[in-house]
Amino acid sequence: MQEITLKKFMKASILFSLLIISSSVLAQNATSISERLGYDKDAKLLILHADDLGVAHSVNDASFRALKSGAVSSASIMVPCPWLLEVAEMSRETPGLDLGLHLTLTAEWEQYKWDGVSPSSEISSLLNDEGYFYDNTTVVMNEGDPEEVRRELQAQIDLARKVGIQPTHLDSHMGTLFTSPTLFRVYVETGQKNRLPVFVPQQATALFTDDFPITDDIIPIQTVGMAGAGNNLDQWQEFYIGMLDNIQPGINEIIVHLGHDDDELQAVTVNHPDFGATWRSMDLKVVESQAFQQALQERNIILVTYREIQELVYGGDE
Amino acid sequence: MQEITLKKFMKASILFSLLIISSSVLAQNATSISERLGYDKDAKLLILHADDLGVAHSVNDASFRALKSGAVSSASIMVPCPWLLEVAEMSRETPGLDLGLHLTLTAEWEQYKWDGVSPSSEISSLLNDEGYFYDNTTVVMNEGDPEEVRRELQAQIDLARKVGIQPTHLDSHMGTLFTSPTLFRVYVETGQKNRLPVFVPQQATALFTDDFPITDDIIPIQTVGMAGAGNNLDQWQEFYIGMLDNIQPGINEIIVHLGHDDDELQAVTVNHPDFGATWRSMDLKVVESQAFQQALQERNIILVTYREIQELVYGGDE
Repeated sequence: MQEITLKKFMKASILFSLLIISSSVLAQNATSISERLGYDKDAKLLILHADDLGVAHSVNDASFRALKSGAVSSASIMVPCPWLLEVAEMSRETPGLDLGLHLTLTAEWEQYKWDGVSPSSEISSLLNDEGYFYDNTTVVMNEGDPEEVRRELQAQIDLARKVGIQPTHLDSHMGTLFTSPTLFRVYVETGQKNRLPVFVPQQATALFTDDFPITDDIIPIQTVGMAGAGNNLDQWQEFYIGMLDNIQPGINEIIVHLGHDDDELQAVTVNHPDFGATWRSMDLKVVESQAFQQALQERNIILVTYREIQELVYGGDE
Repeated sequence: MQEITLKKFMKASILFSLLIISSSVLAQNATSISERLGYDKDAKLLILHADDLGVAHSVNDASFRALKSGAVSSASIMVPCPWLLEVAEMSRETPGLDLGLHLTLTAEWEQYKWDGVSPSSEISSLLNDEGYFYDNTTVVMNEGDPEEVRRELQAQIDLARKVGIQPTHLDSHMGTLFTSPTLFRVYVETGQKNRLPVFVPQQATALFTDDFPITDDIIPIQTVGMAGAGNNLDQWQEFYIGMLDNIQPGINEIIVHLGHDDDELQAVTVNHPDFGATWRSMDLKVVESQAFQQALQERNIILVTYREIQELVYGGDE
């Protein structure tokens, strides 16, 4: 197993939830990882990752279409959301897809809600007066009891496995678990305990402390990007293809949010054009486009999965 | 206030969840109620009632369209479902609509789920291994703890009021609360406690016992009908117009299930054509049709609401 130091890990790169791609931190010494994953030393590896599965049928349908065609290589699931069992069924129909858990402690939409998997009496610091998750990360950061967070994250992993999903990795919806050193530690420890690689954006590296338990389950992922608030709809494809120019040898991740511009998703995302139905349908359009797929080819970018990383770090599933 | 006897109440008429309309039990002595509601002695009054609001955006959109146009006169809401806050918002936009609570203890769809409003640890007899409501009424009847049912029903009423809904009545999703004398008693007592008229189908009259607390909040509703499993899609409009011929002087109720035949509702109701998306879209088509509205007129049928009954029995809202 490799030895990952904090310094080395700091090369993981994302300006999460911001418009621009962080391309300022490039790969160094990443060759060992590419080679250990079975690729050439200088291979440009990309996890092209769809977020938010489970939140709506529209998102499930679009995301599984892209997963099955290979337009994206990986995705993660919001376990507390109403459509979890549709995800479970779709994953049964196409075994082997790379599905992680998009650990969820917020319910951000105005008129469509969910709460936690745990009994609400055991996660009361995470629920509002109406019994739903809060709609923003700040209140979770300020008021979320770390042990209640730990309990809820574990409950989400346990429920996913119970309904037949074998997750390959973890990440954090809305970056909630990257908002404080305490929540971040719970997140990383939960990954370690469950033998699941965790996604860590660059901003979170500031949350590491000297005594942080950095072990083999954290490996550097670089040049990560995603569309953010205020992205220009007119230049959607150019935005993503431009992102590909910044991909360096080693493991990279780009996050997309797939969905159809239909009645359901318009209602879910009402009053919120950013991350809305049109937005998500444009992400789908890009990853399925000839132009984007050709751009990947021309740059010799290879789509890879978290399953490969999980195999490398933990020797596969439990 | 009127004195309602069991014998009198038995005239309320529905064969719930069956294909055919029960028209065998007709009104007698019902004139007093019509008159007390401010209508002529022989007036044919109809509560045309849409079920299942809150379950899906598609259902909310279709149901509020029909409520706002007057195509239906009343509806009831599934409080534990993900779209409750959309219902609350829609009801704020059009004040005065006649909205009750469709008390919900089941989550019957295969790939789209919800659980209770109460902490799951306090209603464990109502939840399956995955933490969702069971998908059928039998297990609730057999295993549901009556005091947990009482707690959950109250929690649904409290949450509805908290989010700004002033319910006018109660009924029971899938008739769960009409499956045993014990559950039925909890239901009726919950209505009385909250000063909300309760809908009681004919089958439930067998659940009354001599010591049952029948008081002023139960008044006879007759000739109730709804489309059921196996209904012939080719004769949808004829089915409903035929139902109107059976409407008698007094208060009648017809239950419809409104929705659009769209991607969301098709996915919610997957593998279940009865009560499916096409089915619900046909209910919408009928109640909005010129032919149906003309049939109501020709028969001098007057659409009325539970609000009027609530006013009569309890003097209005709390």
